[in-house]
Amino acid sequence: MRTSIATVCLSGTLTQKLHACAEAGFDGVEIFEPDLVAAPESPEEIAALAGRLGLSLDLYQPFRDAEGVSVEAFDAVLRRARAKFRLMARLGIDTMLVCSNVATATVDDDEHSAAQLRRLGEEAAPYGVRLAFEALAWGRYVDDYRRAWRIAELAGHPGVGVCLDSFHILSRGHDPSAIEAIPGEKIFFLQLADAPALTMDVLSWSRHHRLFPGEGAFDLARFVGHVLAAGYGGPLSLEVFNDTFRQTDVLRTAQQAKRSLRWLEDQVARSGGAVSLPGGPERLPDVDPPRGFDFVEVKAEDAGEVDTLLRQLGFTFRGRHRSKPVRLWAHGPARVVCNENLAREWPPTLAAVGFEVADPKAATQRAGELKAPPVFRRTYAGEQPLPAFRAPDGTEVFLAGEPEWVAEFESDGAEVPPEDPVLTGIDHVNLAQPWQAFDEAVLFYGSVLGLRSAGSQDVAAPTGLVRSQVIRSADGAVRLALNVAPPAYDDPRGFPQHVAFASSDVMLAARAARARGLRWLPIPGNYYDDLAARFDLPASLVEEMRELGVLYDRDENGDFLHFYTETAGSVFFEVTQRRGGYDGYGAPNAAVRLAAQHQRDQRLSRR
Amino acid sequence: MRTSIATVCLSGTLTQKLHACAEAGFDGVEIFEPDLVAAPESPEEIAALAGRLGLSLDLYQPFRDAEGVSVEAFDAVLRRARAKFRLMARLGIDTMLVCSNVATATVDDDEHSAAQLRRLGEEAAPYGVRLAFEALAWGRYVDDYRRAWRIAELAGHPGVGVCLDSFHILSRGHDPSAIEAIPGEKIFFLQLADAPALTMDVLSWSRHHRLFPGEGAFDLARFVGHVLAAGYGGPLSLEVFNDTFRQTDVLRTAQQAKRSLRWLEDQVARSGGAVSLPGGPERLPDVDPPRGFDFVEVKAEDAGEVDTLLRQLGFTFRGRHRSKPVRLWAHGPARVVCNENLAREWPPTLAAVGFEVADPKAATQRAGELKAPPVFRRTYAGEQPLPAFRAPDGTEVFLAGEPEWVAEFESDGAEVPPEDPVLTGIDHVNLAQPWQAFDEAVLFYGSVLGLRSAGSQDVAAPTGLVRSQVIRSADGAVRLALNVAPPAYDDPRGFPQHVAFASSDVMLAARAARARGLRWLPIPGNYYDDLAARFDLPASLVEEMRELGVLYDRDENGDFLHFYTETAGSVFFEVTQRRGGYDGYGAPNAAVRLAAQHQRDQRLSRR
Repeated sequence: MRTSIATVCLSGTLTQKLHACAEAGFDGVEIFEPDLVAAPESPEEIAALAGRLGLSLDLYQPFRDAEGVSVEAFDAVLRRARAKFRLMARLGIDTMLVCSNVATATVDDDEHSAAQLRRLGEEAAPYGVRLAFEALAWGRYVDDYRRAWRIAELAGHPGVGVCLDSFHILSRGHDPSAIEAIPGEKIFFLQLADAPALTMDVLSWSRHHRLFPGEGAFDLARFVGHVLAAGYGGPLSLEVFNDTFRQTDVLRTAQQAKRSLRWLEDQVARSGGAVSLPGGPERLPDVDPPRGFDFVEVKAEDAGEVDTLLRQLGFTFRGRHRSKPVRLWAHGPARVVCNENLAREWPPTLAAVGFEVADPKAATQRAGELKAPPVFRRTYAGEQPLPAFRAPDGTEVFLAGEPEWVAEFESDGAEVPPEDPVLTGIDHVNLAQPWQAFDEAVLFYGSVLGLRSAGSQDVAAPTGLVRSQVIRSADGAVRLALNVAPPAYDDPRGFPQHVAFASSDVMLAARAARARGLRWLPIPGNYYDDLAARFDLPASLVEEMRELGVLYDRDENGDFLHFYTETAGSVFFEVTQRRGGYDGYGAPNAAVRLAAQHQRDQRLSRR
Repeated sequence: MRTSIATVCLSGTLTQKLHACAEAGFDGVEIFEPDLVAAPESPEEIAALAGRLGLSLDLYQPFRDAEGVSVEAFDAVLRRARAKFRLMARLGIDTMLVCSNVATATVDDDEHSAAQLRRLGEEAAPYGVRLAFEALAWGRYVDDYRRAWRIAELAGHPGVGVCLDSFHILSRGHDPSAIEAIPGEKIFFLQLADAPALTMDVLSWSRHHRLFPGEGAFDLARFVGHVLAAGYGGPLSLEVFNDTFRQTDVLRTAQQAKRSLRWLEDQVARSGGAVSLPGGPERLPDVDPPRGFDFVEVKAEDAGEVDTLLRQLGFTFRGRHRSKPVRLWAHGPARVVCNENLAREWPPTLAAVGFEVADPKAATQRAGELKAPPVFRRTYAGEQPLPAFRAPDGTEVFLAGEPEWVAEFESDGAEVPPEDPVLTGIDHVNLAQPWQAFDEAVLFYGSVLGLRSAGSQDVAAPTGLVRSQVIRSADGAVRLALNVAPPAYDDPRGFPQHVAFASSDVMLAARAARARGLRWLPIPGNYYDDLAARFDLPASLVEEMRELGVLYDRDENGDFLHFYTETAGSVFFEVTQRRGGYDGYGAPNAAVRLAAQHQRDQRLSRR
């Protein structure tokens, strides 16, 4: 489908925005008036640049406080409108967004507003301009799209229709199904925004917290389904006011925006609610969420510290890569790759995560259609080409079927794995997110891998609150915790990331690791006193956990035991054991872990 | 009065927090349980450290979900409580905060809750512990302090009283005057927090956005007045959950917190509502807000660019300082100092603002009592000692009476000022604030200088939203605009700051400056087209503004004309003219200014 985006979604100057929109593959843009007013280029220059870039100028917006005004005040509205119609003719834009009156309305009457819109429609016609009337969620009198349509219908002018904006409709909890009662040709424009579920005044929510589709909580597929069912044939256009996107790289944000619309189009096509039209929504390749973790990769100039931690955790060395300085470690089905290739000056860093997918070809094609940025890795003849994409947080995401790549590791020097491994796989991977990349990451992992957001928590660290968002497959085979470090966090090694291994017996794993000399993260005695107060646990169990640095949590279904290693570079490991149907991640213990890591950093920095 | 602070207000580890609280001058602290749980030190070590630092441990908090539970569930509450009473005995803390039940309450009955509190009081007594029951604003059944007091009274146990928290009471809009009906000795504890006026769910508001007194919108002087009138004799204690304070320097935040209580104590004393008790609230020295700007100082390794801008604006050179590489420029009563002393590698930077105060001695004493950090400047014999303090944003703030320091500038080479200056003084000064320092700055300028917050705006810059908060004296003689740059802003020169001069004729000033070769900030033609559309201005005036790069705004009382110079380092100048009773700062034009400055930066960086 045709796609468009309002210039207000992006950072930079108007011409920078136009270049970025074209490069990201948008068909058109909405010109947000303040962007034009602040631009040194003339309207003719902007129109010509858009033409050269192949972008249509789809909407001029917004024209405020147009209707519902007194007869005396309406003269000034007309004067202002004529100036804007002249400007639109210079830009070559044929549709103006007229939003419902917020500031100057004094007449709460549909006929009165309709008459003023009709008059504006008559004035606009000679300029070839039509008016898309939109109900703002905080309009003085008109704050519901159904009323906006009633007024536009009453206006009875071919150049007066409506603009529908998902935020203004869904934020108020209005039922979007009545959209289907509006004739498609009278829906002059469609603006889309997602948003997180927040309880706050709708104006602040709208101005600061809108998100691109797939990043928030709105059911946009259903919404768009109603609009298409009504017969709307215009572009899907984004209007997202977001404090972060206003300050991040313009091209990257435009690409994220485009990805969100491609994802939404697929969702609409799958929801089936939309009529199937030529030029209607198209599906992405079918893929299931990954069925498990293939491997994780730690990159480092010298990964020796990590090798040691893995050996102490019971991993066995499975060989060196035949062409690169890369080592493979395994324990049961859990695989960790230590990569020293092109890693000069890298402290140990969690650099890549491999996912096992049923159909690598379809998964790769889907990622490509979503414009996930591919990662280049040199592949020699006879080596398995592993398609990979870079996530917004910088993590390289690999998609593979059976782990055939393992065969590239020379078994020379490899050890024999234990017959009865105590680790049973990777339980979850915890990835640090720069605050600027968080929403983009939710969209990336959601659209490319098909993972879904589960609970989110704030965890208090000594350096500030850490926001932790879990995304996972429905069956729990793949779980990622996306952790946003406090903005002021400034350790040059980066915010710690980790791999949590699943275990059938965490106590056994802890004792064995201790016997191999593991440097584990020390947990304060106060934690165990509190544990004994909170849960009615056998004293002997608490004492064993205290001795082994094992932490504990419980939910309505079961309980959870886990321990942490010390950190190498920015990487550490966790060993977990889920008992019963426990479905969390030990979140109440995360603050204790972060404090213990901070204590250790402080000790090291004092040396 | 005695002061205390909850450890949750601060960043760092528990021992770092204790050290900072002691150094900032607090008398005691509240131990926030998760801080203790995450600390490697034993309760005895914490108690001993606090003892050595001279800090009393005033409160253990919070004990959650204690009352309103079923009879069966209460056994587990008792078990948990006993463990915490034992812990409190180890810490030597005699008061526990028991907050109203959020998660596990099933019985909505005052007698039932009272009986459970009574039982807890009986259990606590042997440990020397008393219970301060607090109504959380989001308590399941008990969310009003008046009900919490009713329940505590019903409990009828000497060890059961209430804790009052200003946030939980004022956020719900509850009338605090009924506090006076509670016997003072039954108010076991008082927690204070300010907060901005926000419309959002009260839990998020409380957990993320609380502020220290003087930084928000609550009337805390009146609130504390009621509590003192009730006969409360305990400490004023701060409990502020704030995302920023959790990640900023622990000592600096503690000092800010202490300043907020000193300011509040003064406000309480002045409000007169409080009974005058021995040990009651004490006033700060009386001072009026500054009666005007004395000077602004630009610091630079080479201030030549600024000298040129000033000369072009019509300033006259008034001489060199007799002992330092410092030059004085003046135009009418507006004075700018160019300081090249100890300025190696400084690009031109707005470094200091001098304020003219009626009683410099009292103002200095007040700043000292508020622990404003003094600035050292070497003063030679015969020179005017000018007391100065460092604001949170790094600006040096000078307090002086008559500008006698001007005499230290050698008139050799000085020019004769014009008889009829077109500039009439400094209208306002615009100071960039790091996001971490913003709330602290509001408190600093408010408490030290007596300036009050006026409107705040978000301005869209190409690099993100800029939050602009005006603080001013009631008469408008001193106006500061505090601008918070977007967090991702990373120009090493810093976010631009500026001095706005007042003028009796901005067009005359602009023409004269142009004639002297001024490099002014170019304003886009689109701006003037929009201006003509928005306001019914004479075409000739719009054309003159377009020619001279003058911008325009209007409010209900009058209008405003202004223009900007280009930027030297991070400093630029503005010339303004207020006509009629215009009381704003041309905020609608700020986005155009920021875009034009951004365009210029882009051009320069491409060279």
